[in-house]
Amino acid sequence: MTNTPPSERTRARRMHEKAAYDRATIDAILDAMPVAHVGYVKDGAPVVIPTLQWRIGDQIYWHGSSASRTQRTARDAQVCVTVTLTDAMVLARSGLEHSVNFRAVMVFGAARAVTDPAEKAEVLRVMMEQMFPGRWDQLRPMTAQELKATAILSLPLSEASAKIGTGMPTDPPEDLATPVWAGLLPITLSMGAPIPDPNLHPDTQLPDHAKNYRFGAVSRP
Amino acid sequence: MTNTPPSERTRARRMHEKAAYDRATIDAILDAMPVAHVGYVKDGAPVVIPTLQWRIGDQIYWHGSSASRTQRTARDAQVCVTVTLTDAMVLARSGLEHSVNFRAVMVFGAARAVTDPAEKAEVLRVMMEQMFPGRWDQLRPMTAQELKATAILSLPLSEASAKIGTGMPTDPPEDLATPVWAGLLPITLSMGAPIPDPNLHPDTQLPDHAKNYRFGAVSRP
Repeated sequence: MTNTPPSERTRARRMHEKAAYDRATIDAILDAMPVAHVGYVKDGAPVVIPTLQWRIGDQIYWHGSSASRTQRTARDAQVCVTVTLTDAMVLARSGLEHSVNFRAVMVFGAARAVTDPAEKAEVLRVMMEQMFPGRWDQLRPMTAQELKATAILSLPLSEASAKIGTGMPTDPPEDLATPVWAGLLPITLSMGAPIPDPNLHPDTQLPDHAKNYRFGAVSRP
Repeated sequence: MTNTPPSERTRARRMHEKAAYDRATIDAILDAMPVAHVGYVKDGAPVVIPTLQWRIGDQIYWHGSSASRTQRTARDAQVCVTVTLTDAMVLARSGLEHSVNFRAVMVFGAARAVTDPAEKAEVLRVMMEQMFPGRWDQLRPMTAQELKATAILSLPLSEASAKIGTGMPTDPPEDLATPVWAGLLPITLSMGAPIPDPNLHPDTQLPDHAKNYRFGAVSRP
């Protein structure tokens, strides 16, 4: 997860971590990981907050309370939205070569506030539909007041880049003779069994979108 | 993961998300999740990069290549380090009340560069020892050149706060009659079976620190 080091000694790592700028790679990472960290500048200092992002075509969206200082500050301001998947710990023969296999996307730009109520409702519907297919139509419609209380920000993917670290440790040849275990410890996000709200209405059944939910998803068009 | 909304309608959520400032809560979150997102300001715009953080007493540390622009820019500059654990998707009876159970810590301050080689070696040793007990002593010592190539930044925990969302959805009473499934979809990080490097020295055995590795750990003193 470090930037490209230039020294001769760590040349191998440059092959291990790659930057990518193609939309297929970027979209796949964004679609696989809803958690994003949004950075903005407040009184000259950086603030990084976790949120959920979702992608619709060439834009990513995130939302929060209209009353939130965060949402107000980020509106029309320059932001950086970073999405990171941690895939494996990489154990090498020397301390220096230890690393993490990861996939990350950074999106830069000026956040646009989605203010039109119809557009807001539509992007919220799509968010829900992507995460929990069929659920939106089971819920009562959002009220005008609820839509108003929900601030939605968006950012185009025009200034987006991916960085990906994959593969085995890239120890230099002289370290390979060391009898130290090296390799990958894979990390995955897994879902536990759904826990029903104790106040469930008695006619309620566990829906497929809860039964089959996987955090993140395969890439969407 | 949104900030506290003030409206009457969403009063319940204020009880669902809580801020905490005590060190026990903050330390437990930092120790449980090594992945951090570091925000800094570059030419007036925010930049958010993923990295690994580790805590030693009252400081958190993160590292990267000395040659990295990121490490150079963050040095002595105001940063925000955010660490987030995503614990569950919270499915409610209305769109608005859907949320995420999470634990997050934000640490603000001016990043200090650790420059003394002995101090660098020691904080790297502790990082390794916390993640992979016993491993540091199996590795060859880091060379002076490797230590030089590794930039380490640190931040005191004096300006740290936690935010935690827990529990069941906080639907208002009038929505409880809706026969829509509501509850939690728990999310955990799990480790897959270790994948050995194909170039392992034949005398190598899988060590306990790889066999028993869990991403993050219980809190440390």
